[in-house]
Parts: sequence; structure tokens; C-alpha cells
Amino acid sequence: MALIGILGGMGPLATVDFMERLIALTSSAGASRDQQHLPMLVVHLPHIPDRSEALLGNGESPLPALLHGIGMLNRNEVELIVIPCNSAHHWYDEMRAESRAPIIHIAEASVAALPAGVRRVAVLATGGTLHSGLYQRMLAARGFESVEPDAATQHHIDACITDVKAGKIGASTEHLALALDWFARQGAQVAVLGCTELPLAAQQMSAPPIPTIDSTLELARATVSYALAHGWNRPL
Amino acid sequence: MALIGILGGMGPLATVDFMERLIALTSSAGASRDQQHLPMLVVHLPHIPDRSEALLGNGESPLPALLHGIGMLNRNEVELIVIPCNSAHHWYDEMRAESRAPIIHIAEASVAALPAGVRRVAVLATGGTLHSGLYQRMLAARGFESVEPDAATQHHIDACITDVKAGKIGASTEHLALALDWFARQGAQVAVLGCTELPLAAQQMSAPPIPTIDSTLELARATVSYALAHGWNRPL
Repeated sequence: MALIGILGGMGPLATVDFMERLIALTSSAGASRDQQHLPMLVVHLPHIPDRSEALLGNGESPLPALLHGIGMLNRNEVELIVIPCNSAHHWYDEMRAESRAPIIHIAEASVAALPAGVRRVAVLATGGTLHSGLYQRMLAARGFESVEPDAATQHHIDACITDVKAGKIGASTEHLALALDWFARQGAQVAVLGCTELPLAAQQMSAPPIPTIDSTLELARATVSYALAHGWNRPL
Repeated sequence: MALIGILGGMGPLATVDFMERLIALTSSAGASRDQQHLPMLVVHLPHIPDRSEALLGNGESPLPALLHGIGMLNRNEVELIVIPCNSAHHWYDEMRAESRAPIIHIAEASVAALPAGVRRVAVLATGGTLHSGLYQRMLAARGFESVEPDAATQHHIDACITDVKAGKIGASTEHLALALDWFARQGAQVAVLGCTELPLAAQQMSAPPIPTIDSTLELARATVSYALAHGWNRPL
């Protein structure tokens, strides 16, 4: 039996949201009984030091704790690893180097989902991920132009993420709406929600001013595609 | 760092619902940042053979697969185990005997939540759990009288559970409403939702005809109480 390894807890609700997407996508692919669903091992470690703070130079590195989680998943013989936290992907190469199991890259999956013809792409992420340039580099490599937030807009993005982590989804949505309005005024054609807390706020918006790419959903799609192609929904 | 072990996947959405309750209860207890939440290890094994079918004599025993999951959690040094599936608790003693970590019993947590003064309690569960008498014995031991469904009502309960497992929440709610109406007519004062799929349907009901005890929520409450009492929300 092949297990999908999830390194989660960053944050807790985003991991649950990711699992729910995996299950819904597997149902859409035809699973109607428990036994047709995908086995997973979820190492849910909310105590991992804050990724964004570390990237901004304000806190301890999460890398030892991330590698601890990656090691645990590999010791339990998972066949694939996914990490529903964009900021953690700053340390992708270090995690990949210590993992037997392949790791799907959340930002690669998200950028791959951008529609053809689009040029200006808004980057919504933690302050740390924005500062690290993770999405900007990946967008440039594929011929897209990044639209980065100004300070006031990043403040709304940060507040949205903090509110989701505190379970205040209503308030988080207001901050996200203000951020997306600003990006729309800058001529951004699509917004990448490059932090897995942001889709939880976006799901509550009746009419986002520009279309969004949901990094949680794109990671879930890539995971389910991989798993179904390998037949992991079939018990041995 | 102490880990809460969850033996899940029975079914997939019920496990996600359980995790979401754990996180919400931890937030309500004051957690506002990732690092104040509870670490978990979730062994999510939807391929475990159908518990209800086995209890009705129609399928292979899930016990070897359940013990495989319990073994995996113990090898990873979890300090507590919870299983968000009522039917699996038919094998509680066998699992407990092979587990170093204590296992909270979902039916004990649910029956303990019944309000004083109540006498007639509706039992809603899989056909297998109903047949096993798990809830009826526990209710009788505490002085409650079980109201068991007739065949037509059990058909609605089974259909509700099957629909939730297939992701058809809307249809599942109609079946649950018909079952609860029948129990109300029998004079049941409270209904125990003794299957972790049922609360997913109940959450969509605007006005259940009798109050319900939600076994997913009661297991989550017992888990969070235990974990917070042991300080597991504080990183080492």
C-alpha cells in the first residue's frame, strides 16, 4: 500500500483544507466508497518555527524541524511528499536532498496552472515568501510579469493570513478583498494565492475582482493526478 | 514534542471533519498562532475493510488493518490515540491490548455527553454497530433506554452514511431528517449520532427535530481536554 506523505500543520486549517480538496478530487475521479480513496500519512507539526519570520530575518530557521518531518515521512515509507505551505518551499532543495520520496513543488504546480495569454500576475504570499522572490523567479522563468504589492497591500495580505491562522475567516476575507482590488487597479490579470491560508479567505468571497490561482487546489490536483496514475486508490 | 495519533480514513471526510473540530476547539481555547496548536500524526487508511459489513458477517475482518495502523502510530511514539470511527470501536479491546498509547473510546465520550434527566436515547449508527450492541450496552450501563430504529429507519441511516462517504452531503441530509423524525415520534429525547459520517449531514440541517449528540465533536472535545491538560500545545 502506497502512502502519500503530507508535511502539514503550517497552518493547521490549511492542512485540513488541503486534505479536503484531495478527498473531493478523488471523489470526482469516481471514488464512492472509503476503499477507493487515497491512503495518507499526515505529519501535522504546527510547532515548526514561523517560515515567513525566518525569511525576513526575524526568527529561527524552520529547516531542522522541516527535515525532522521529512525524515519521519520517509521512515514510514511514503512514496510521495507534499507540503501545503508555500513559504516552506524556500527550503525545497534542502528537503529534497534528504528525502527518498519525491516532493511536489507547490509553486511549480501553481504557476503551471496559469492560463495562456496572461501576462501580469499578482503575487499574494507571506512577507517572507515575497521577500525570498520564490514566485517572482518562477514567473519570470515562464515569461510572466510579477505584480508585487505595495506596503499597504502587503499589510492586508499579512492580516488576512494572520486572521485565518486565528480562525477569523470573516475578517480575513475583508483584507483579501482590499488586496485584490489594489492588484486589479495595477492591471494584474490573475492573482496567485501563494500562501495556503489565502484560499480559505477567498472561498468566502462572492465576486473576486480578478481570477485567482489557488495554490492549495493546484497542489491537491497534482497530488491526486500522481497518485491515481500510480493506482494508489486500489487496495493491494 | 507529544503527538496525538489519529487512526483515520474511516471515512476520509469524517477524519478531516474531526481534525477541523480539534483545531477549532484549540483556537477557542486561545490558540491564535500555528505554534499554539496541537501536533498530530494522522494515519489515514481508507483501505481498511468495511467495519459495518464485517460486523454483519458479510466481509473480512478489519482487525489486522486496524492493528497495522495502531502499530504504526505507536512506532512513531504518539502519546494518545483517537479513532474517529464508531464501528471500529467494536475491536477496542484488541487494539488497546496492542497499544502502548492510551486510546480514548468514542462511544464513552459520546454517552458521557448526554444531559441529565434524559431517559430515551435514539441510537443512530451503521447497521454493524447497531447489531453489535456497542451503544445499547453502554447506554444501559448508565441507566439510559436505547431507542433502536426499525428497518425502514435504519435504511435511511445507512443511506445517509453511504451518501456522505460518496460526497453527496445534500442527499445525505434528507435521509437523516427522515430518520430523526421517526425517532422523535417514538419519544426519543436525544439522538446519539454514533457514526462519524452522520454529523456531516447533521451540520446541514436547519432544525433537527430532536437534539443530537455528535460523536465526532465529543471525541474531539475529549482529545483537546486531554492534550491541553498535558500541555501539548506548548513547543518544547
